[in-house]
Amino acid sequence: MLDVIAAVEGSTAAIGYGLAAIGPGIGVGLVFSAYIQSTARQPESSRLTLPYVWIGFAVIEALALLGIAFGFIWQGQL
Amino acid sequence: MLDVIAAVEGSTAAIGYGLAAIGPGIGVGLVFSAYIQSTARQPESSRLTLPYVWIGFAVIEALALLGIAFGFIWQGQL
Amino acid sequence: MLDVIAAVEGSTAAIGYGLAAIGPGIGVGLVFSAYIQSTARQPESSRLTLPYVWIGFAVIEALALLGIAFGFIWQGQL
Repeated sequence: MLDVIAAVEGSTAAIGYGLAAIGPGIGVGLVFSAYIQSTARQPESSRLTLPYVWIGFAVIEALALLGIAFGFIWQGQL
Repeated sequence: MLDVIAAVEGSTAAIGYGLAAIGPGIGVGLVFSAYIQSTARQPESSRLTLPYVWIGFAVIEALALLGIAFGFIWQGQL
Repeated sequence: MLDVIAAVEGSTAAIGYGLAAIGPGIGVGLVFSAYIQSTARQPESSRLTLPYVWIGFAVIEALALLGIAFGFIWQGQL
């Protein structure tokens, strides 16, 4: 009997989020590594550059979190 | 009986957005890391280079957001 | 008889987490490598930059751990 044709199960949203996390994982790492290196070199600049660490972190991390949101949306659950 | 044919569910739009977010995640990280490092090194240049941070951020992030828009369009929902 | 058509089995959540671990793997490596290099160069800066190592590590690692959580969620197990 033909009871199982596709044994791979789950949602494409899991693959989508996995892909969407690659770029932000590297990008946020670049932002923090730049801040660590420049703060070690010029400690007096740490207050000047800190806001851009948080802005950069936020806009990059948002790309991965959008992957979660649209994973639900494109599954038709939202 | 043929009761299950496709157990993987969801839309390819989720995979498409995931792929579209890889590049912008790295690219926006490069822009902010360059701004943090150059502002720490030459604090007097921070006003001169800031507009290009926002322009670069906008045009790079647009690539990922286009992935959302065309995800809906190619699904036939728009 | 046609008793097996698809011999590949498992869940897309495994592929999703595998992809989600690529970026954070590189990103956390960038953060720690920046801290090691800048601490070696300016040992007096090690206390100043250490908090950002932990913050950066936490927010980047979270991207991969979200891939585990949403793997379960999108399978319909949670």
